[in-house]
Amino acid sequence: MTKFWSEAAKRCTPYVPGEQLNDPNIIKLNTNENPYPPSPLVVGAIKQEVENQMNRYPSPTLDNVREKIAYHYQVDKENVFIGNGSDEVLAFSFMAFFEEHQQILFPDISYSFYPVYANLFQIPYREMPLKQDFTLDETLFFGSQGGVILPNPNAPTSIHTALDRIQAIIENNNDNVVIIDEAYSDFASDSAVELIKQYKNLLVVKTMSKSRSLAGLRIGYAIGDKELIEGLTRIKDSFNSYTVDRLAIAGAEAAIEDNKYYQETTRKIMNTRNWLLSELKKRGFKVLPSETNFLFVHHPMFHAESLYKGLKENGILVRHFNKLRISNYLRITIGTKESMEQFLGIIDDIFSKK
Amino acid sequence: MTKFWSEAAKRCTPYVPGEQLNDPNIIKLNTNENPYPPSPLVVGAIKQEVENQMNRYPSPTLDNVREKIAYHYQVDKENVFIGNGSDEVLAFSFMAFFEEHQQILFPDISYSFYPVYANLFQIPYREMPLKQDFTLDETLFFGSQGGVILPNPNAPTSIHTALDRIQAIIENNNDNVVIIDEAYSDFASDSAVELIKQYKNLLVVKTMSKSRSLAGLRIGYAIGDKELIEGLTRIKDSFNSYTVDRLAIAGAEAAIEDNKYYQETTRKIMNTRNWLLSELKKRGFKVLPSETNFLFVHHPMFHAESLYKGLKENGILVRHFNKLRISNYLRITIGTKESMEQFLGIIDDIFSKK
Repeated sequence: MTKFWSEAAKRCTPYVPGEQLNDPNIIKLNTNENPYPPSPLVVGAIKQEVENQMNRYPSPTLDNVREKIAYHYQVDKENVFIGNGSDEVLAFSFMAFFEEHQQILFPDISYSFYPVYANLFQIPYREMPLKQDFTLDETLFFGSQGGVILPNPNAPTSIHTALDRIQAIIENNNDNVVIIDEAYSDFASDSAVELIKQYKNLLVVKTMSKSRSLAGLRIGYAIGDKELIEGLTRIKDSFNSYTVDRLAIAGAEAAIEDNKYYQETTRKIMNTRNWLLSELKKRGFKVLPSETNFLFVHHPMFHAESLYKGLKENGILVRHFNKLRISNYLRITIGTKESMEQFLGIIDDIFSKK
Repeated sequence: MTKFWSEAAKRCTPYVPGEQLNDPNIIKLNTNENPYPPSPLVVGAIKQEVENQMNRYPSPTLDNVREKIAYHYQVDKENVFIGNGSDEVLAFSFMAFFEEHQQILFPDISYSFYPVYANLFQIPYREMPLKQDFTLDETLFFGSQGGVILPNPNAPTSIHTALDRIQAIIENNNDNVVIIDEAYSDFASDSAVELIKQYKNLLVVKTMSKSRSLAGLRIGYAIGDKELIEGLTRIKDSFNSYTVDRLAIAGAEAAIEDNKYYQETTRKIMNTRNWLLSELKKRGFKVLPSETNFLFVHHPMFHAESLYKGLKENGILVRHFNKLRISNYLRITIGTKESMEQFLGIIDDIFSKK
């Protein structure tokens, strides 16, 4: 620490992302990336765009890509905000809709970036406990002072909350913004996007990092009432006029258009997920019901941390959170079926040696 | 405005970037872009990277590209911070080094994003007047309460302040950070980067948008003492773990390595600048001495706003600021020699009709 740091730089508690090891031999099941490459149309669009005016600034208003995303979700361009990954969209959302001295609510087990934003922007928060089985008691989120944010499906638990219960939270927070962070909803049974026409206080945040295989390109977006989008835009335009580069714009446009490719890869991942779930259960794992591209598991006989270490020694990286209530769980990203077979092989090895 | 906006969303006064018209027939001389495409090595590196693991997150620590930039400037990796354009680097710098209730100083005529950041983060500021001839009186910046930020060369005036006078500002602000925004310094005679080993309170901010022809890719960076870089990194990691995408990383690495290409295009622009300056003087323009890729001009007989309009009607876009002291000036980006000849042709047309 130095005398030159602001109070914000001193008080913040930076987020620690999953390990990014640069070893191509490692099977990476720790950051919920998609095992499949992006659509060939995305690659083609980027290769074309890179020949074209990279010396010029990108569009500050992102009209074309917003229109394409709007069309996909059957909303208007004015309902769509795009950012440099959904983390940036969430950061802008904290700035645009949450307030110092007004407590916001999020689940005690959820995306660990929320308290990081709250500390950075000095927004007081309360972590509302999930039930014993990690499902959500929606009534705990009614009548917040400053707003609500929650992932649905939740991470790292993988559990999905039905839309009518999300709706109850929105209706019981009339004066505040409710942010539903749908990073994983393309692997789930429904999305709150259909509610945005009904509720002016609902913001749905999504990403191309998971289902669209574009973690490397940084495209996140928010869908909501046009006044919420305008608030986000005001913050963004006071922070950085051009947050999304020309190649990311070209890639995002192609990704949202090639729906067929994305539906196919998503279906493959969901099939592998369901197969892996039953394989893990056969081996005595307790597996939470997942509507995401990962499983959240624990084993009555093997402690999660030692399993994490045993897997890492064998070239497989999963995520272990040293946190209250979940320190005996592992979060396992769904890779290709081949990767998951290798993963199960290592698990069987570890189990056989104990 | 809506009840859902935070105080920040209500109070901020978003930056308005130069017009980005999507008409390929327009000669764009209004946002200080480089008229030449980026190095072919940049294009090649991006085409290669797009085939490679776009489904994986980029490096959160950006070690390789930081090392390459560090090598170029003869500093250490720990002295380099990279962001999504220098606007993001500046935003993080305001958060990391400036403080509510502690007044910062910047010139009254300078980059118009500074007051925007200050309003967003509630940092009080005072705009110190440039002299009558738009040169800087460095003594006005001595002993600031909360820090100093200034572009060198200055924008939109194009005037460069000599390094010994910048040094005097740094030395007379021992307890605060002095940010030198060197967006244009590759077109100037010197850079403050050489001072960073000497002063722990100096942060130099640079960009690949201008001299490296990569406005479309969004790469900015800061060079400073490792404790300042650590402060910036803490803020960034509390805001967005992955601000620079895989393609931007690949492009930035190639751009910093292909020094020969960039020196050649920079030299061409500086030659065109010097030629244009004399051509404008022949036509009665007053032209400030430029060490940038643009000229700041006025004409005793023709008002800037009407010239701006006349040029626009003829398909040429320059920048006019409707601001105190400079409302009778135009900022003209240096394009290719051919564009500037067309520009002069239109000027001659306009003059002949009056």
